[in-house]
Amino acid sequence: MKKLLGLILMAAALGGCAGTPSPAPGTQMLVHLAQIEVYPQYLEEYLTYVRENGVASMTKEAGVIALYPVYEADRRDLVMVLEIYADEEAYQAHLNSAHFLKYKQGTLKMVKSLNIVDLGQISPELLPVTFKKASP
Amino acid sequence: MKKLLGLILMAAALGGCAGTPSPAPGTQMLVHLAQIEVYPQYLEEYLTYVRENGVASMTKEAGVIALYPVYEADRRDLVMVLEIYADEEAYQAHLNSAHFLKYKQGTLKMVKSLNIVDLGQISPELLPVTFKKASP
Repeated sequence: MKKLLGLILMAAALGGCAGTPSPAPGTQMLVHLAQIEVYPQYLEEYLTYVRENGVASMTKEAGVIALYPVYEADRRDLVMVLEIYADEEAYQAHLNSAHFLKYKQGTLKMVKSLNIVDLGQISPELLPVTFKKASP
Repeated sequence: MKKLLGLILMAAALGGCAGTPSPAPGTQMLVHLAQIEVYPQYLEEYLTYVRENGVASMTKEAGVIALYPVYEADRRDLVMVLEIYADEEAYQAHLNSAHFLKYKQGTLKMVKSLNIVDLGQISPELLPVTFKKASP
């Protein structure tokens, strides 16, 4: 099974077979890295908002593929969120969801700066197996 | 099921119950963001190495939880890889794996700069469900 998965992924990574012009997986997805600098005095409160929004988005929104928040180990006030949406529609739905609006409104005063970087996936074929091994 | 999952995740996100001092999930994990600037003339060749290393690592190494490569949409020579390892041992094993050494040796001349940022997880309880929705 492991070997089969490896072969399938290897084939996908190295390009599909000639004569099978199916669209590449993940090409519709939107991938962002949000870089957020938080005022240190609000950090714990901010992280609570981030966690709540993450859980609500991941469980209630089918189109939110990943919302993975981290901070720099040496600078916890520098937060990053890897965001993956199924498509533009899913992204717009997220921006208008009650939980995101609550997060956005609640954290306005806590955010010193926000930068959103648009990203392209290098190995979208790895997405279905990525993170799966984290399951207990 | 969805509601139950939501409740479990919400409980985990807001802190465990008093009197249950089990270690927080994901605390052993190492999370890195590798920031790589690639010489543009080698970009396509470099991306082939990244894909091969990613597939080999994800399929052959149980301790590699995620190796998710992306580039900036407007600057494809600016590559980032989100790396998650089960623990320090898994990270060291990865650094000494045949596929990683092949990638490292093969791309030496292609890499203009490399910066590895140590990260801390804000919502490790979300890891098992993150990315799962990307499955076909």
